[in-house]
Amino acid sequence: MNLTPQPESAPGEPAFPESPFRDFSKLCVHTITTKPWSVEEAAEHFALSGIGGITVWRDALANRNIYQTGQLLRDHNLTVVSLCRGGFFPHPEAAGRQAAIDENRRAIDEAAELGAPHVVLVCGAVPGQPLTESRKQIRDGIAALLPHAEASGVKLAIEPLHPMYADNRSAINTLGQANDMAEELNSPLVGVAVDVYHLWWDPNLEQEIQRCGKNGHLFAFHICDWKTPTEDLLNDRGLMGEGCINVRQIRSWVEATGFNGFNEVEIFSNRYWAEDQKEFLEKIKNGYLYHS
Amino acid sequence: MNLTPQPESAPGEPAFPESPFRDFSKLCVHTITTKPWSVEEAAEHFALSGIGGITVWRDALANRNIYQTGQLLRDHNLTVVSLCRGGFFPHPEAAGRQAAIDENRRAIDEAAELGAPHVVLVCGAVPGQPLTESRKQIRDGIAALLPHAEASGVKLAIEPLHPMYADNRSAINTLGQANDMAEELNSPLVGVAVDVYHLWWDPNLEQEIQRCGKNGHLFAFHICDWKTPTEDLLNDRGLMGEGCINVRQIRSWVEATGFNGFNEVEIFSNRYWAEDQKEFLEKIKNGYLYHS
Repeated sequence: MNLTPQPESAPGEPAFPESPFRDFSKLCVHTITTKPWSVEEAAEHFALSGIGGITVWRDALANRNIYQTGQLLRDHNLTVVSLCRGGFFPHPEAAGRQAAIDENRRAIDEAAELGAPHVVLVCGAVPGQPLTESRKQIRDGIAALLPHAEASGVKLAIEPLHPMYADNRSAINTLGQANDMAEELNSPLVGVAVDVYHLWWDPNLEQEIQRCGKNGHLFAFHICDWKTPTEDLLNDRGLMGEGCINVRQIRSWVEATGFNGFNEVEIFSNRYWAEDQKEFLEKIKNGYLYHS
Repeated sequence: MNLTPQPESAPGEPAFPESPFRDFSKLCVHTITTKPWSVEEAAEHFALSGIGGITVWRDALANRNIYQTGQLLRDHNLTVVSLCRGGFFPHPEAAGRQAAIDENRRAIDEAAELGAPHVVLVCGAVPGQPLTESRKQIRDGIAALLPHAEASGVKLAIEPLHPMYADNRSAINTLGQANDMAEELNSPLVGVAVDVYHLWWDPNLEQEIQRCGKNGHLFAFHICDWKTPTEDLLNDRGLMGEGCINVRQIRSWVEATGFNGFNEVEIFSNRYWAEDQKEFLEKIKNGYLYHS
């Protein structure tokens, strides 16, 4: 394994910050990050790099035996970190909310078959429905899932999403709100996924990370970067080091709580998906080493 | 003036909410909203509709006698509500921060010439500079302006911007932060501009509007809507009624503080700028009446 910094800096520019990592054992990559690869291709390439973890998106499991896929990942020395994603609880009709709960039960079943310890929840929102109502429906939806989650041995990680997704993706838009909800639900099965892309701007971020950790609710840590300009609200995330997020500082806050889990690279990017994924994976490793 | 609802709803759809407005005397339109029009054209068309207010963007004043432009607006029975915009205080170099202060002094001078009671501040941010540092630079920049603002009789309205602009437009991203800063500066010259587009998602919005009002800091109220999907981070704002923001509810919170100012329509939209601006102005009036 070559940990030598890649010479991306021009002469005279500041050198790379020293890497705090000696290897990629605490790096996890989401299957959606390298979306052009099948889960099998991803497993092979991640393993060749000594990457320690993989988070699997449900679409990557289509038409597969999920248990055997989990075995394949473990055979590549990959820890299955999370299953992405459940959620989307709010709906104006009770039947729609029930359908969401049923779908989340299936996600829990898939996580159990795969061997993922938790399902990440993108909690949902309905344009025009008051956010306060959506939040109640989210809380009630998660509460309804708890018996099935407990029986399955699968936890649920509430992921607060950036306020620019409050219209139709999540009514939970700050870590403070996610902490509130996890505290209210008050179950060892319910925690929080902290993603720097969604939360980096929050003036209360450090305190809320501390609070989340103290509660034992910090289940997952996602990294990427915020580019200037960002040209698409969904699919223009940057690699660590490409943008304005101080990933290393936020990671230090996360680790100060005792968090010892993976650093999960979750990047949606039309630009990177169009590239050769092997080259992209090298960039991910570089961003992880020198900008995370 | 025709206040009859336009028949935009399909048969069977809910009727327009009843309009609480009897006329357009409390409607203000920003010159940038109808960007294809010169300030003179805007004045003429706004006046023909009985619109009561205009907020002038500085680019609309280029190559004009600013005092005479203010007179022209008043001759059209338009109240000059605000000058947009000052701000952009943060800079990594002291010389850059001084240049920003100098530029803001010019904005204050223009507001005084035009007869605008305040300058709206888009406070600024520098990608990669810690937001905490940018906030200090913003506070120091505003403080440095106060003697000139006082001598000119012009106030300053801090506008908190949506967190999706925290990279390069503003390190002040919630009304709570804007209230904090206005309280810290503790000057009758410094207040806040509340814009539904930036703040609608905030779970603390109602309380922070109350706080802002109690402090006497609520200087301005901007309206538009958040579309689903939003296709551009900057220039895809919607007309009131086109999106998910409950403008009427937020307006009720603003007015509950005693605010009796204008409802300022500030829409950046490549789509609407490409339309016939007279037709667009009719849509603005309709959105104001039935969705504000």
